[in-house]
Amino acid sequence: MADRLTYAMIGGGIGAFIGEVHRRAVSLDDRATLVAGALSSTPEKSKQSAEQLGLDPERSYGRYQELFEQESKRDDRVDFVSIVTPNDTHYPIAKMALEHGFHVVLDKPATHTSEQAAELARLAESKGLVCCVTYNYTGYPMVRQARAMIEEGTFGAIRKVYAEYHQGWLANDLEASGQKQAAWRVDPKRAGLGGALGDIGTHAENLVAFVTGLEIESLHASLNAFVPGRALDDDASVLMRFAGGAHGVLTASQVCIGEGNGLTLRVHGDKGSLWWRQETPDELRVALHDQNPVIYSRGGPDLHEDAEVSARIPQGHPEGYLEAFANIYKGAIDAIIAHRDGSAPSRMAQLIPTINDGMRGVRFVERCVQSAKKNAQVDWA
Amino acid sequence: MADRLTYAMIGGGIGAFIGEVHRRAVSLDDRATLVAGALSSTPEKSKQSAEQLGLDPERSYGRYQELFEQESKRDDRVDFVSIVTPNDTHYPIAKMALEHGFHVVLDKPATHTSEQAAELARLAESKGLVCCVTYNYTGYPMVRQARAMIEEGTFGAIRKVYAEYHQGWLANDLEASGQKQAAWRVDPKRAGLGGALGDIGTHAENLVAFVTGLEIESLHASLNAFVPGRALDDDASVLMRFAGGAHGVLTASQVCIGEGNGLTLRVHGDKGSLWWRQETPDELRVALHDQNPVIYSRGGPDLHEDAEVSARIPQGHPEGYLEAFANIYKGAIDAIIAHRDGSAPSRMAQLIPTINDGMRGVRFVERCVQSAKKNAQVDWA
Amino acid sequence: MADRLTYAMIGGGIGAFIGEVHRRAVSLDDRATLVAGALSSTPEKSKQSAEQLGLDPERSYGRYQELFEQESKRDDRVDFVSIVTPNDTHYPIAKMALEHGFHVVLDKPATHTSEQAAELARLAESKGLVCCVTYNYTGYPMVRQARAMIEEGTFGAIRKVYAEYHQGWLANDLEASGQKQAAWRVDPKRAGLGGALGDIGTHAENLVAFVTGLEIESLHASLNAFVPGRALDDDASVLMRFAGGAHGVLTASQVCIGEGNGLTLRVHGDKGSLWWRQETPDELRVALHDQNPVIYSRGGPDLHEDAEVSARIPQGHPEGYLEAFANIYKGAIDAIIAHRDGSAPSRMAQLIPTINDGMRGVRFVERCVQSAKKNAQVDWA
Amino acid sequence: MADRLTYAMIGGGIGAFIGEVHRRAVSLDDRATLVAGALSSTPEKSKQSAEQLGLDPERSYGRYQELFEQESKRDDRVDFVSIVTPNDTHYPIAKMALEHGFHVVLDKPATHTSEQAAELARLAESKGLVCCVTYNYTGYPMVRQARAMIEEGTFGAIRKVYAEYHQGWLANDLEASGQKQAAWRVDPKRAGLGGALGDIGTHAENLVAFVTGLEIESLHASLNAFVPGRALDDDASVLMRFAGGAHGVLTASQVCIGEGNGLTLRVHGDKGSLWWRQETPDELRVALHDQNPVIYSRGGPDLHEDAEVSARIPQGHPEGYLEAFANIYKGAIDAIIAHRDGSAPSRMAQLIPTINDGMRGVRFVERCVQSAKKNAQVDWA
Repeated sequence: MADRLTYAMIGGGIGAFIGEVHRRAVSLDDRATLVAGALSSTPEKSKQSAEQLGLDPERSYGRYQELFEQESKRDDRVDFVSIVTPNDTHYPIAKMALEHGFHVVLDKPATHTSEQAAELARLAESKGLVCCVTYNYTGYPMVRQARAMIEEGTFGAIRKVYAEYHQGWLANDLEASGQKQAAWRVDPKRAGLGGALGDIGTHAENLVAFVTGLEIESLHASLNAFVPGRALDDDASVLMRFAGGAHGVLTASQVCIGEGNGLTLRVHGDKGSLWWRQETPDELRVALHDQNPVIYSRGGPDLHEDAEVSARIPQGHPEGYLEAFANIYKGAIDAIIAHRDGSAPSRMAQLIPTINDGMRGVRFVERCVQSAKKNAQVDWA
Repeated sequence: MADRLTYAMIGGGIGAFIGEVHRRAVSLDDRATLVAGALSSTPEKSKQSAEQLGLDPERSYGRYQELFEQESKRDDRVDFVSIVTPNDTHYPIAKMALEHGFHVVLDKPATHTSEQAAELARLAESKGLVCCVTYNYTGYPMVRQARAMIEEGTFGAIRKVYAEYHQGWLANDLEASGQKQAAWRVDPKRAGLGGALGDIGTHAENLVAFVTGLEIESLHASLNAFVPGRALDDDASVLMRFAGGAHGVLTASQVCIGEGNGLTLRVHGDKGSLWWRQETPDELRVALHDQNPVIYSRGGPDLHEDAEVSARIPQGHPEGYLEAFANIYKGAIDAIIAHRDGSAPSRMAQLIPTINDGMRGVRFVERCVQSAKKNAQVDWA
Repeated sequence: MADRLTYAMIGGGIGAFIGEVHRRAVSLDDRATLVAGALSSTPEKSKQSAEQLGLDPERSYGRYQELFEQESKRDDRVDFVSIVTPNDTHYPIAKMALEHGFHVVLDKPATHTSEQAAELARLAESKGLVCCVTYNYTGYPMVRQARAMIEEGTFGAIRKVYAEYHQGWLANDLEASGQKQAAWRVDPKRAGLGGALGDIGTHAENLVAFVTGLEIESLHASLNAFVPGRALDDDASVLMRFAGGAHGVLTASQVCIGEGNGLTLRVHGDKGSLWWRQETPDELRVALHDQNPVIYSRGGPDLHEDAEVSARIPQGHPEGYLEAFANIYKGAIDAIIAHRDGSAPSRMAQLIPTINDGMRGVRFVERCVQSAKKNAQVDWA
Repeated sequence: MADRLTYAMIGGGIGAFIGEVHRRAVSLDDRATLVAGALSSTPEKSKQSAEQLGLDPERSYGRYQELFEQESKRDDRVDFVSIVTPNDTHYPIAKMALEHGFHVVLDKPATHTSEQAAELARLAESKGLVCCVTYNYTGYPMVRQARAMIEEGTFGAIRKVYAEYHQGWLANDLEASGQKQAAWRVDPKRAGLGGALGDIGTHAENLVAFVTGLEIESLHASLNAFVPGRALDDDASVLMRFAGGAHGVLTASQVCIGEGNGLTLRVHGDKGSLWWRQETPDELRVALHDQNPVIYSRGGPDLHEDAEVSARIPQGHPEGYLEAFANIYKGAIDAIIAHRDGSAPSRMAQLIPTINDGMRGVRFVERCVQSAKKNAQVDWA
């Protein structure tokens, strides 16, 4: 099959949560094969993971530097690299990948500083390479429907946006138990400036930007670390003023017991409103002025092409997180093929989040932290 | 029946929305009879309304002053007065009522300034009179259940509170059409300092205070007037810091197309969380750490006495807004009877909102407006 | 007020569940006053209840016969009689009421046999009296909206109807504990032929008939008595064939633990479908062929007049069971006034269930019991 | 990787709905590779599809007979065969596959007659081969949780079961337009005895059997063909009596406009009840006597091992139809590996539906059709 690609993974050894998710997301549509990797922080663990994943031992590298050096010399070099290491290592790895001419799929948040992200963006731009950042929630068909409807003006001028991402799993000091996922997220060295803010607040910020296209002009953030001993926020509340006058409220918290992945978006314009909720992602509630609300659904009537091409199965059979995540990879693979063939990118390819989104996300964290420290409003620019 | 009272109404002539609600709320439990009134702004209209409501013409007064003067001379003087006039007239009317020794039920928000409310509070206190402010949402049985569970420590120390009151009916300039309800709400002279903030934000603030008992220490508010030409806010977002360290986000908006009366409360403590939503008021969602969420419901098992005494019919037969409103009156009537008889007030009587709640609500509006003007955090005290 | 009526109540002494509901339903709109009663099975208890309810001792009767005899001689005789006694006494009481020229509001199911109901119907007809049976769920505004939309052809020809009424309160032998509500419902002498079937199955049958207008031609019923020792069904499942070819499934059960008052209706026609659920009665879900579903709501846009006149407060402030019940009384009072004045009955008056509905409900129970005994389909006629 | 298998597919050429679903279900966990196929009804189309799917041309067979003959001679013969052809061809293909010693994964309903299914069952048994039938809904983690809780006695003795599978896509004569999915389903030659009954009623029947373990003793079915011209039912309603005295109501319909894949299950026992709904599959509502209902969820607390091993990602990130389908394949692959290695089958392997389930499903259709023709109850045996 002409359109089957190969890829390498950096990080994501056996046991790592997000690496497994990335691999499943690729597998679901079965258009790329994992053939190489530097899967863990030590060569031994990397080899072990590579064996379990069935990689050719020759292409199982102990360190990422080695991977880029060796792979770039091969005729059958991988088409792209998935980087799923902890946040703090994203920048050097992605930089080296791009410098060696590999397309990159990078877990979010992209980097530790917005300058790093900007540098990666410039590098990808100058090399003409795809640098996709996996803001996976933008892969949900009904999120894309929401974006399309706003772009078409269905809701008029946007006035108010509510975005939330509430979780409860860090309500206690889970990190004290050594739980791996918790440990790095609360550690400034690995997580960066933001705790809940960086981990999930950036998803909410990205969702707002993707769906509404609005640009933040200024913001006022309040950050809390409710669990004793935490150096980073586990709870964030942000008031945002957008260019053009719209106003937004974004909250991200990891201490909301009883919340799983409570990512929601509500947008209110002068002609109508929309509601979307990640935990029931196949539905989009829409209300126009003086009309009864309508429930749009994946696979249902009256959908925009962007929602239709992002669905796999008929209405009423739920799709979920992995399918949405797979849509990001589907788009990235489309983009890489279009790049290779010099053809026009598909709609899926055009919809993927890029390193520019990653850069904006990191900037969002920086500005929130700045505002919270000053306890005052700060400008975006 | 010994416990049947009589009352007079100021305002609430035929066609007025809230007067009708107050009368129905009294009727539902049928423990007080409307026997007197100064129902409209003009003597003619008052008479007309009185006739339609079947009042004795002798006790249909043209002006409220007259009502207090005449009624206070009668042997069968009314037991209490319901004041349902526009906001700007609450203060002088309530003052005169208390001065003439009448118990008062006052529509919210109590007064235009917190000083006025404080004066009413002092007056009621010194006269030993009941002065109830109809923050009606506290009458819902499951709101009372929430309050009781927090008080009992079920959720541990409160960390985060989300309160919302979103409506859509003022998304366009309905006031231009002369719609009566819209017109006074957008008029600073009648509505006071706050638009959405005063009209519905105060309900959200009261719900937070009633349920959590938390006290605001400082706040940062952002106010918008999205519909051109409005002098008052039609959208408000407030970050709040409570004594003890908890944090809150309160939003109130009347431009959210598709929202009816979207009043919701979420409280997250270090042991668990609760969710409540006015549009499905009979349910209270509760989640404790590491346990599956449980749906409490009016009439169901494991309820606190406060929720039980506030319900009228069995589980699964919905109660609504009027029943909750009636619970306020039920409590006020109980309080008046206890006052009269020198007996201990019932649980219903103890749960009613008073002029002190009204005062805090007006203060909330004042502080939010102050913060928004300065675009900075302000202290409560 | 010219339109204020007076009424007497038979049954419904203090402590009785449904009598209290009837009184509140009348009070809510405050258009009729309870002035007479034969409230309990013994003269002593009747007197006690009458005192608590504040009745004039002269009009507190020990037995219903006395009430009809005495009241019919008074100039200020009551306008109508509410009969809320156990099922087995409905027939003689209602008969005597009608014979003495009183309008009747009768709790459901009307009588023990369909012949009795037919006789009452003939009597009411010949005397020109109102004989309303309180199938209260037809009072919900969105049920009336559903009825109007079907009548207008919105959903095309009806094909399939699903009606359920599931409760859980009789899942154990509550009657053994002496609980009054349970005790009479499981006693064939008092309840009649049907257990769950008569108590709640008839509500479901009535809802189907009211909303769809369909007439049952034949049915096959399966009845169960799951709780040991029960002589009557506590669970019923009925397949129904309607005139014109539509098919229906009706289930009524009182052993479904976790169900409160799970009365639901779904109607599927060849152009579209509707869904309604008593526990969230303010919403009506509607789906037309090839269109996204739309949520109609009480107080919202695009409602039929029948739904509008049946609502009291704006959209988003819930109304519930008592308000729906009150709509039946509102209609009955309107009907009585129209009768008195010789004027055209209001829309509310035209929508009330009558003794003909009661007769059909009793016939439904008879036919189901017959089918279950034969374990075969039976014809309606 | 030792545990990676290979498989062939019969049917499922490009454009076929269910073949694509099967392939994705395998890909998601990436433990088997499609290496051979007889993908379409003609050799030309088969070749074309094989090419698009990247099969080795040598292993792209024109007819299924050829596939079994050739593959059985190879050293690297496929481990199993997926049969996703129209219903009428299942029997001969599965028979030949088993005779040639291939494990089989067979789309449901297994065969046209229960005798055929019984023969396949005997054949698989005697050869010691896995013969899995893809009743995919049993793959949902919360369905497995429901099954485990019932088995553990959480709900006591089961009294009543409600199972529904309602769709709306055949509400009009879609088959007239030549739509492929519709065309074969309404054609008795290809679909068999049942229309909606066979297509989706069997899913509901299987769900009941899987979750409750109850066995049907007798049933009464009513079948309708609402769309003019249909030879098979498009709507079915079945009353069922189970061994031990429980009663069930099962409805399956394809003319319910507005329903997508409305598969729901409710089980009521003498200690408690459960509710599950395919369109929100991650939740299981549970209510025990005199306790408030609890919401269990995939990835949440207090789950049975069967639910835990069937999940891939954390709570709050939705899984859907493909993940559930993949669980069937995961189990089948585990079963095949256990068979190969002579090891004990995993929990996943033990939970898969087999040809015995397929046989029972076909029998269910046969009995329903028989009952509907006689318009009488029929016994299962």
